[in-house]
Amino acid sequence: MLESIVFQDNVLKLLDQRQLPTVNTWLECESSDEVAKAIEAMVVRGAPAIATAACYGLVLDAARHLKISSSWKSFRADFAASMVRLQATRPTAVNLANALQQVESLSASFSDDLSMQEVYKSLLGFADRLARVDLETCQAIGEHGASIFERPINVLTHCNTGSLATAGYGTALGVIRSLYKAGKIKQVYVDETRPYLQGSRLTAYELDFEGIPYTIQVDSAAAFAMKKGLIDMVVVGADRVVSNGDVANKIGTYSLAVACHYHRVPFYVAAPVSTFDFQMASGADIPIEMRTSDEITRLGERWLSPLSATTWNPSFDVTPSELITGIICEKGVLKPPFSESIRKLL
Amino acid sequence: MLESIVFQDNVLKLLDQRQLPTVNTWLECESSDEVAKAIEAMVVRGAPAIATAACYGLVLDAARHLKISSSWKSFRADFAASMVRLQATRPTAVNLANALQQVESLSASFSDDLSMQEVYKSLLGFADRLARVDLETCQAIGEHGASIFERPINVLTHCNTGSLATAGYGTALGVIRSLYKAGKIKQVYVDETRPYLQGSRLTAYELDFEGIPYTIQVDSAAAFAMKKGLIDMVVVGADRVVSNGDVANKIGTYSLAVACHYHRVPFYVAAPVSTFDFQMASGADIPIEMRTSDEITRLGERWLSPLSATTWNPSFDVTPSELITGIICEKGVLKPPFSESIRKLL
Repeated sequence: MLESIVFQDNVLKLLDQRQLPTVNTWLECESSDEVAKAIEAMVVRGAPAIATAACYGLVLDAARHLKISSSWKSFRADFAASMVRLQATRPTAVNLANALQQVESLSASFSDDLSMQEVYKSLLGFADRLARVDLETCQAIGEHGASIFERPINVLTHCNTGSLATAGYGTALGVIRSLYKAGKIKQVYVDETRPYLQGSRLTAYELDFEGIPYTIQVDSAAAFAMKKGLIDMVVVGADRVVSNGDVANKIGTYSLAVACHYHRVPFYVAAPVSTFDFQMASGADIPIEMRTSDEITRLGERWLSPLSATTWNPSFDVTPSELITGIICEKGVLKPPFSESIRKLL
Repeated sequence: MLESIVFQDNVLKLLDQRQLPTVNTWLECESSDEVAKAIEAMVVRGAPAIATAACYGLVLDAARHLKISSSWKSFRADFAASMVRLQATRPTAVNLANALQQVESLSASFSDDLSMQEVYKSLLGFADRLARVDLETCQAIGEHGASIFERPINVLTHCNTGSLATAGYGTALGVIRSLYKAGKIKQVYVDETRPYLQGSRLTAYELDFEGIPYTIQVDSAAAFAMKKGLIDMVVVGADRVVSNGDVANKIGTYSLAVACHYHRVPFYVAAPVSTFDFQMASGADIPIEMRTSDEITRLGERWLSPLSATTWNPSFDVTPSELITGIICEKGVLKPPFSESIRKLL
């Protein structure tokens, strides 16, 4: 299976997703600050993947402190600063916040004189477990998702939600993987997913790797494909699912959900419970990250618009629960009314 | 005003729209075959603009034949072949077919012994008139469109429908121009319009040139912008309007129309009567041009997806009349039921 996050000899290696699919390079991080920068620059992206990368970032700091500190007491302030720094990288996905909150709880149990060796072991254990559980969770999501359909179908997906966005296997792409294994995929329609092109660059790369048949189209062609009867189901990932079932996900998701509603095409969201924000009541409260104009106005060194152009570049949008057919998580397929089915998860 | 098609000293100069907005180069054509190639490569694009360019292409052939032929009789076979060649360049926009049909009628009146000088004059007169009428028509469309709204609004548009797509002024962009002159534009939201980026490259270039305030966003963000209340009206051009009011236009138009329907945002089409196909009953019959994968998988020399990727790349889609609020033409604003209002144009 494709790997994009490798922790080895106290170095975190991240497959540089800005360069894919044509260039395969790894960025080596040796501190949480370097990891934070890699998350901001989208070297690594995808809600579950950035949570895992951030936790390994804290392990990197602990590894460096092993050489200079003797106990938790001397590391604690730096650790707190790193937590703040990592948390500030990207606001929309809640997996990062959820994971850091768990690390926070874990560290609250450390006594002042706990040796740095123990602190390091504890943080590494947490990060390894997070990655392992993420992988198992994605596989469970895949199984549940694949069980929805009886016959081979054409699936459309948006953004990248595979091994490059999680610790492995993937959420929406995990469902597609499991459907394919079960002989239930005719064709995967891949939205190119502007501006970052997670679809044409990353999802296509993963499907190519797996030998799953796929076709790329521009995002704005999805509704027309539905009108032409080419799409049997849409499945996307999520950056945050809130208590009423509203979902924040990559910009363009909402447009797809509206088109599915109009064409009566089932619209599924695939997300682990770690992506749920049980504290937040409605999607209107989700902070939406605005990214720079560069993503739209340039591609590499090439300008795609006038130098003085301004842009509106929300990285995510919010799809209201009434447009969602089902939310596939590791516990099963949640159905409306979502406030109820989500409350039952607690 | 910005010009993109200049006929001078028997050379047709086309502003190369593949290079805009950063590089300003002109391609010089000296035969209809060179013009046909320029249309296919989208050096020049936009339904009215390609009709004008094609007619000047026939003038170029006549100019060359002036040196070697004495009369219409000796030019006729070459002329017929050029007509076929030009007609085959792009199938969806009907302006080209309509204009060539008029040239056909004109040439049917030529007697065998008509001198090449007369043939040349006649074809040049036709092409010049086509361009002049197109410009006046666009200005009338602009006036009619601007009269719909009383107060300053936020307008969203897709693709490019301005001076670069017509003989000047533009259709949907003509409406925006007239709205701006009347002090009724707050902001123009410009869909970048993948894959060719007519929005971020060309429409932005024209708005920049005119000093009209604009903001570019990715196509898939349009529905979310509507949800956030940022859009008061959408106006697009057309490549073909058929008898029942169905409209073929740049891929992504249909997706916008569905989003407008869901959000109750008025959805207008701006098109001259030369874009109407009175013979065709329904949008289902419109031939949709499929373009090559390269437009999606590459940008210049840079690959955006795996080398083996396949794509689905319809250049246009069809929006059914029931999603259209009004069709703005030079005769006024047509309203539903469109079969009736369109029949009255005849």
